[in-house]
Amino acid sequence: MATSTYTVTGMTCGHCVSAVQKEIGKIDGVSSVDVDLATGRVVVESTAPISDTEVATAVDEAGYEVANS
Amino acid sequence: MATSTYTVTGMTCGHCVSAVQKEIGKIDGVSSVDVDLATGRVVVESTAPISDTEVATAVDEAGYEVANS
Repeated sequence: MATSTYTVTGMTCGHCVSAVQKEIGKIDGVSSVDVDLATGRVVVESTAPISDTEVATAVDEAGYEVANS
Repeated sequence: MATSTYTVTGMTCGHCVSAVQKEIGKIDGVSSVDVDLATGRVVVESTAPISDTEVATAVDEAGYEVANS
């Protein structure tokens, strides 16, 4: 199992959280996506390490942005 | 055609707008639901006058609230 953490900006409600979870969840190997709306913190668990670019693309697809850390 | 206007509070994003449109759209006779996210103004067109209570219930179902005018 691999765990990656991101900060996503622009989410304002539960629907935003669902949209982000759904898009990241489509990435191969992702087993869970935990989103904290208040902080924008997104924890992604996957069976193998995933690419940050893929996550950024998924978040963009959902209509939000990964903050540069 | 009848037109009713409401103010809905709590919507923060396009997903909220869609949720409100979808629930109000389920009311019998409703032909269009126009939502302005910035102001919360919701304009409902229907083939016959609709009940404010039904609209308030639909908005509540979506997870938001009609402001008392």
